[in-house]
Amino acid sequence: MQVNNKSYRTLWMEGQAVKMINQLLLPHRFEIAACETHKDTAAAIKGMLVRGAGAIGAAGACGAAQAVIEAPENNFQNYIKNAAATLWSTRPTAQNLFAGINFVLEKIRGRNLKEAKTIARGAAEEYADNDAASCRKIGEFGSALIKDGAKIETHCNAGWLAFVDWGTALSPIYFAKRQGKKVFVYVDETRPRFQGAILTSWELLHEKIEHRIIPDNAGAYYMSKGVDMMIVGADRIAANGDVANKIGTFEKAIAAREFGVPFYVAAPTTTFDLKCASGKNIPIEERSEGEVLYAAGLGDGGKISRVRIAPKGAHALNPAFDVTPAKFITGIITERGIIKSKAGEIKRLIG
Amino acid sequence: MQVNNKSYRTLWMEGQAVKMINQLLLPHRFEIAACETHKDTAAAIKGMLVRGAGAIGAAGACGAAQAVIEAPENNFQNYIKNAAATLWSTRPTAQNLFAGINFVLEKIRGRNLKEAKTIARGAAEEYADNDAASCRKIGEFGSALIKDGAKIETHCNAGWLAFVDWGTALSPIYFAKRQGKKVFVYVDETRPRFQGAILTSWELLHEKIEHRIIPDNAGAYYMSKGVDMMIVGADRIAANGDVANKIGTFEKAIAAREFGVPFYVAAPTTTFDLKCASGKNIPIEERSEGEVLYAAGLGDGGKISRVRIAPKGAHALNPAFDVTPAKFITGIITERGIIKSKAGEIKRLIG
Repeated sequence: MQVNNKSYRTLWMEGQAVKMINQLLLPHRFEIAACETHKDTAAAIKGMLVRGAGAIGAAGACGAAQAVIEAPENNFQNYIKNAAATLWSTRPTAQNLFAGINFVLEKIRGRNLKEAKTIARGAAEEYADNDAASCRKIGEFGSALIKDGAKIETHCNAGWLAFVDWGTALSPIYFAKRQGKKVFVYVDETRPRFQGAILTSWELLHEKIEHRIIPDNAGAYYMSKGVDMMIVGADRIAANGDVANKIGTFEKAIAAREFGVPFYVAAPTTTFDLKCASGKNIPIEERSEGEVLYAAGLGDGGKISRVRIAPKGAHALNPAFDVTPAKFITGIITERGIIKSKAGEIKRLIG
Repeated sequence: MQVNNKSYRTLWMEGQAVKMINQLLLPHRFEIAACETHKDTAAAIKGMLVRGAGAIGAAGACGAAQAVIEAPENNFQNYIKNAAATLWSTRPTAQNLFAGINFVLEKIRGRNLKEAKTIARGAAEEYADNDAASCRKIGEFGSALIKDGAKIETHCNAGWLAFVDWGTALSPIYFAKRQGKKVFVYVDETRPRFQGAILTSWELLHEKIEHRIIPDNAGAYYMSKGVDMMIVGADRIAANGDVANKIGTFEKAIAAREFGVPFYVAAPTTTFDLKCASGKNIPIEERSEGEVLYAAGLGDGGKISRVRIAPKGAHALNPAFDVTPAKFITGIITERGIIKSKAGEIKRLIG
């Protein structure tokens, strides 16, 4: 997608290096970090310079390719195995990270080192291209739902920064714009980490899509005035169509139903977890209370700093996700088409 | 209510001075400001050292009393009239400010200056006492709805800091605690100005009431796990029972209905505006986008400062209030009793 009128992906390989947008500095500074070795890439994943399911997977694939390229003749398989373990240990709960690393390892399986070195980089690029193509397809299918002049609300950041390119919830919007449709986006700021205000707004600014950041509290207010649809991403979709996503998604879905606003989830098919029968089985991560008690941003003198909101001695709860039951979801936009959030349709699509 | 184990009101007269808790410094510093003249009091109202309907009214009454006490023999009526105009001009849309000033002026009407000087201070104190008594009554009625061990959610700050004492939404909780009931409060942080995280949490800490601050996004999540009731304040209640209150109230009311959580509004009868037929007629103030684009709090070095959240060039919408239709409201707790949010009951109570 566009940054300062130039096309970027969140990360890519350049020679032996993995280059990536340093997302820790967004939206206040745009800088490209260069990871010269697989260890640098592992550190970048762990340090969250790159985040989001698709982008982490591609970073893992690129890191694995780096390891193959770096590997010494002597006992190279061991070197690659250790590197894969290092990469995976950075975010062990990220499904896509494992998938990305494994994609490259599978491609070089049984090859000698010389062959592996020839293949590795291409394999990582193939993984990244697949992610981008899949997100682009979500955009293509989803854009059919967007009418010219539509007002769309979104929550959190399910944009291209979370993937290699295009993103999920924002991809239909980017696609609709390229089709010449006019779109206006209500961007939920998404407390406590402000991913909407920080990342979604930054993406839309650079893609020149008209939008306004709104406090999460203003969702129902604007829906009551006329929002045409809501599109969000997903962290995990259960076999029955329940969707785990950023905290606040559930409340928006309830409000959307109240006002008859179609509520869509956009996600690649890799997000479905058919072993998970229902959203009730999805554990909700409780994050540090500091994210709620403080707010971080650009302070005086251009330094990224944080301010304490709450009184000394106060405590906060900080659930990272909630689960929106399938009945609130109008449809799920995937790279294979749009389906209803019903067990049967999900099984036909994925099973 | 309690601050550092000592009883306080938000403001009071001490000799000729009006003393008040400087709410601009909360929750990080607790300081009492002394307004020696009515002009100091006017500046404090304008500068928002004191805020909230009831507290502003009492500040107006005290400022008017100061003016009477200060007035010179020569043309004293003119002095008092000018002082009243100065006081009122600080927040001309605040209904209670006018009521507070007027209460004192009515008491001294037709009196000579010597008599007026004797009466004025007592009149201001009577106004403040009425406000406190009315809020206490709200607590008394409301506490009957609170069972021992209740989990209660509240939005924004409708506590004693917004009034002279007790508050509205929090008064039933304070009363229940004094009755020996155990209460737990979910405090919506209430973006963009964080009144929940800042003021409600501070009040509850000092009253030693167990609570946790939650992101506004987590409301539906905790309701789905079990919230016993929600209590909020009100800025204005229309004749049909629609309630204007802090942005986000409407969304919580929708979520509360989804989970069968009783949704109560607590407000003195002065909040009803029978000339306003429906919530549709209540204009919604749009505040500065800076409140959304930035967050303010205690920065490094103990300085109150703000950080920029959103990227340069991004814009935000910032509606200060929303209107919750009467049908979402379980009941309205007033100083005269608890009523249903129905035109007939409101008319019987107020009309």
